[in-house]
Amino acid sequence: MKAQSKTQTSSNGTFSELDKLSMANITASSSRLWGFFIACYWVSIVTFVLLWRAYKHVSCLRAEALKSPDVKPEQFAIVVRDIPHAPQGQTRKEQVDYYFRTIYPETFYRSMIVTDNKEANKIWGSLEKYKKKLAHAEAVYEGSKTTAKPEGTRPTNKTGFLGLVGKKVDTIQYCNKKINELEARLESEQKVTLREKQQDAAVVFFSSRVVAASASQSLHAQMVDTWSVFDAPEPNQLIWPNLKIKYFQRELRQYLVYFIVALTIFFYMIPITFISAFTTLDNLVKYLPFIKPIVNIKALRTVLEAYLPQLALIIFLALLPKLLLFLSKFEGIPTESHAVRAASGKYFYFTVLNVFIGVTIGGTLFKAFKRIREHPTLDEISSLLAESLPGNATFFLTYVALKFFIGYGLELSRIVPLIIYHLKRKYLCKTEAELKEAWRPGDLGYGTRVPGDMLIVTIVFCYSVIAPVIIPFGALYFGLGWLVLRNQALKVYVPTFESYGRMWPHIHNRILASLILYQITMFGYFGTQKFYYTPLVLPLPILSLIFGFVCAKKFYPAFQHPALEVAANTLKEVPNMELIFRAYIPPSLRSEKIDDDRVEDALSQCSRTAPV
Amino acid sequence: MKAQSKTQTSSNGTFSELDKLSMANITASSSRLWGFFIACYWVSIVTFVLLWRAYKHVSCLRAEALKSPDVKPEQFAIVVRDIPHAPQGQTRKEQVDYYFRTIYPETFYRSMIVTDNKEANKIWGSLEKYKKKLAHAEAVYEGSKTTAKPEGTRPTNKTGFLGLVGKKVDTIQYCNKKINELEARLESEQKVTLREKQQDAAVVFFSSRVVAASASQSLHAQMVDTWSVFDAPEPNQLIWPNLKIKYFQRELRQYLVYFIVALTIFFYMIPITFISAFTTLDNLVKYLPFIKPIVNIKALRTVLEAYLPQLALIIFLALLPKLLLFLSKFEGIPTESHAVRAASGKYFYFTVLNVFIGVTIGGTLFKAFKRIREHPTLDEISSLLAESLPGNATFFLTYVALKFFIGYGLELSRIVPLIIYHLKRKYLCKTEAELKEAWRPGDLGYGTRVPGDMLIVTIVFCYSVIAPVIIPFGALYFGLGWLVLRNQALKVYVPTFESYGRMWPHIHNRILASLILYQITMFGYFGTQKFYYTPLVLPLPILSLIFGFVCAKKFYPAFQHPALEVAANTLKEVPNMELIFRAYIPPSLRSEKIDDDRVEDALSQCSRTAPV
Repeated sequence: MKAQSKTQTSSNGTFSELDKLSMANITASSSRLWGFFIACYWVSIVTFVLLWRAYKHVSCLRAEALKSPDVKPEQFAIVVRDIPHAPQGQTRKEQVDYYFRTIYPETFYRSMIVTDNKEANKIWGSLEKYKKKLAHAEAVYEGSKTTAKPEGTRPTNKTGFLGLVGKKVDTIQYCNKKINELEARLESEQKVTLREKQQDAAVVFFSSRVVAASASQSLHAQMVDTWSVFDAPEPNQLIWPNLKIKYFQRELRQYLVYFIVALTIFFYMIPITFISAFTTLDNLVKYLPFIKPIVNIKALRTVLEAYLPQLALIIFLALLPKLLLFLSKFEGIPTESHAVRAASGKYFYFTVLNVFIGVTIGGTLFKAFKRIREHPTLDEISSLLAESLPGNATFFLTYVALKFFIGYGLELSRIVPLIIYHLKRKYLCKTEAELKEAWRPGDLGYGTRVPGDMLIVTIVFCYSVIAPVIIPFGALYFGLGWLVLRNQALKVYVPTFESYGRMWPHIHNRILASLILYQITMFGYFGTQKFYYTPLVLPLPILSLIFGFVCAKKFYPAFQHPALEVAANTLKEVPNMELIFRAYIPPSLRSEKIDDDRVEDALSQCSRTAPV
Repeated sequence: MKAQSKTQTSSNGTFSELDKLSMANITASSSRLWGFFIACYWVSIVTFVLLWRAYKHVSCLRAEALKSPDVKPEQFAIVVRDIPHAPQGQTRKEQVDYYFRTIYPETFYRSMIVTDNKEANKIWGSLEKYKKKLAHAEAVYEGSKTTAKPEGTRPTNKTGFLGLVGKKVDTIQYCNKKINELEARLESEQKVTLREKQQDAAVVFFSSRVVAASASQSLHAQMVDTWSVFDAPEPNQLIWPNLKIKYFQRELRQYLVYFIVALTIFFYMIPITFISAFTTLDNLVKYLPFIKPIVNIKALRTVLEAYLPQLALIIFLALLPKLLLFLSKFEGIPTESHAVRAASGKYFYFTVLNVFIGVTIGGTLFKAFKRIREHPTLDEISSLLAESLPGNATFFLTYVALKFFIGYGLELSRIVPLIIYHLKRKYLCKTEAELKEAWRPGDLGYGTRVPGDMLIVTIVFCYSVIAPVIIPFGALYFGLGWLVLRNQALKVYVPTFESYGRMWPHIHNRILASLILYQITMFGYFGTQKFYYTPLVLPLPILSLIFGFVCAKKFYPAFQHPALEVAANTLKEVPNMELIFRAYIPPSLRSEKIDDDRVEDALSQCSRTAPV
């Protein structure tokens, strides 16, 4: 409604050049709309062609990567979940070994029962911490040996909370003592873990890539909620605590999380408005009287008054990616890369619905719902968007421009990490390892980067016909992005996991969703222009759905499971199964000493030559 | 509306006892409705428990059957479709062999390229016909050698249309000549077929059950629309002409058929009404003057006048199962049992929608649509059914009773086949083979029998609470059915194929669909009674959907593909791969002579010991 009134007053010259440009289109005669109409089809068809070629290309890349003649541990293993109770007198290990040796008498190598490593991880974590602390203290001690004072100063610390309170001790001695203590505890905990904390899941190793690939996609048990399998990810990607979650509990958790996420996306403004209403300055002063002197400073008061209402929102938006990642892991997703994909997918819907549609309609989705509830037709929903779009062209143009000037500038120069690194180097880092740690660029951060780019895709699609000036901006954004991020991905960031292009189907579907949003918007747009042939736009979303369906049928299964023809490629060398097996032992359970015990416990015996 | 007015006039005593019984319930006070309400939940919960146990039981039966230590050819083979074009200089056979030998170097045995056997089948068919005719003629000749005429009479026939016109020849000589001719033609046609009519599909044989089971459910190619596989059915079940249909064409055909079937189900009355309007006696006499004398006989005229309007409907209903089977095969379904399942599923929707709902609402779905269109809410649809149900209780009771008195009586005595058999024995059959042929009981006819029983299930469900007197009838029907059909299935009928219980998930889903129909009807029923707590019925259909979802997740995949743990059971003997391979050669291509040529053509070489 707001946008309509804008449209009527656009001749008053209260709008920017761009707005006028798009307004001009609106007031153009109906015959000119045919141009828009053709452009609308053109954009869609070009998108289809490019998406098809991209999917094919990524699929080939994935096949190439999987074909690689290098031995990769994840290509020789599968993960089994939902193992039923072991029969009387059989250990879990015996049960798993017997089961898989019966089915794969020749290629089964060994199995590793998943254990509950929480306690062991905790001990291992603090052990690592003390080791680092020791190294740091030794470096500090070395550094303090100046010519003036050749014996140096032994560093000290307090044992209490954050090193602020408690008894003062010699750090090097203290750490050594702690390390010895923890090593003993870790060793006993490892034994307990391997013996008593076995879960209903296992990693199973095969001596052949093809068999592992085939096993990962075959149904093993007659009852599907037992012995369910999937192809093993890289060792460090496996989320061990999630492996024990049972089949139907996973399903349940998934729907629960979808529900929570939907609530979050649609109604996140309610708690935030509530909190904002509460955290006014007056309220704060009333409940926290000690901040009164601060508030009384005038300059500070102005700033606080301006930002305090937004504070809750800013904190929420900053924490959202983390929250979504947490929720995705809570679903019971067993691999890190999958969790990141799931979180990124959820974040996409949040940004598109709230940032794009939210800004466009000029408020929260809430208001729009009200109008939709009153006239719940597709026509109404799409025209709601279409009416508001032209008015916001400038905003989104600025948004895209800002994103590539500032965003890529920061990205390329990496000025903030550089400053932080130099600060750390000067004041904190003493050892070589600490320096390396400080320099670590981390990974590309798919979780937030992809939804951000998808938002740009959505914006460019939706304005491509109404305000085509956005297209060069979009082209620049993605062109520069290709140059910048290719460099960053290849030479700067260190990937933490490799999912062999499984992100692509995800991106593909979301681009398609943006395209459909654009097509529906255009339908609404032609509707508001009283264009007589508006229904002719309707085949477009249907075409998009068919296109998506065909792509999903043709390409997607090869992303879900490794294709056998790919896995059948010959290897450079005979795989060392022992190394592959060891790669999956989590660091907290790794130990040189207890290898003999291990054989008796959760990690199964090697397959002897004769099959059972 | 009609049913409502009936309800109001029910006190006039114009209805049968049963109707009154149900009417009494309707006019009962609201507090008694709680009894109905509890019964409604009771029926649903009992159904869930029974369905769950049945699914589990059938799943175990399937596992047992698949575990069988007997060698069954279908457990060693998979069918590959959508084979891409062979590279230059490679024959199809080499291509397939190379592909599978690379993936399964140790267990691949041999492949058989699917050929277009249309011509060969035709020749083989007429060859068989002449062979039968020859045997028949020889038996007749032997029979004619009486003591009075020891040299007998050589049977003769005419060579023209149906043996009615043309030159008169000695049958034995004629048949022998024809057989020799056809055998030569078949042999050359077999060569041509094997060499030139190869299609993009193949049957691939493995020397291990587990590998075959695993291969049938694994993704082989990176592009999913090539090298698509499924587990081979029994040799005689394979529909060869459907194997060559391409991936996306199959998808397309499937949706096309669904659309046609939906049209048939909803609007079949339109063409039939049209035809009926045309085939009145007067019209017939006008266009076919030669039947005038017949029409003038008064008795005949009365009969014709009564049945002629129904004639088109009767013919349509008689041909419908055949039509649905044809449509299911047209979908590109590659096995007979699957086609029968698909046809039976389609027939179920037809009977439930048209017989049950049609009779209940008292007209075709057409009229109901009109009312639904005016008030398109779930509430309206369900109350439409609920209002009409009580009035039809008697009709459906009679229907069920008739079905089990007449139906099972005919079934058990098999009086019609017996009469036909004795007539045939007396007048037609001369040879032993012909007698056997006449005696053949055929198979159980799942295609029409299952939908018929499902209709009874639907009726019993829907009346179980409103007119519970139907329950003993239903129990009798299925109790007797268990006794009668168990006997017939085990001792009378000869199954034409074995699908290892794949029919069950199908039946399960349809029982569940009936249950949901019942629950929605009850919702409408409580609504028409102005029962205050009606919304409390709504959890029931949701519960049914969740139940169906859980069952599908837990049991269904094991019906889609053989589970590996089942296939891993040890065999009684080492399988004779040559016999397994030969079982899949269609009868029209079987020949003793051309075995050496065959090796060169569509049927691949045996796997030599050394893998490629």
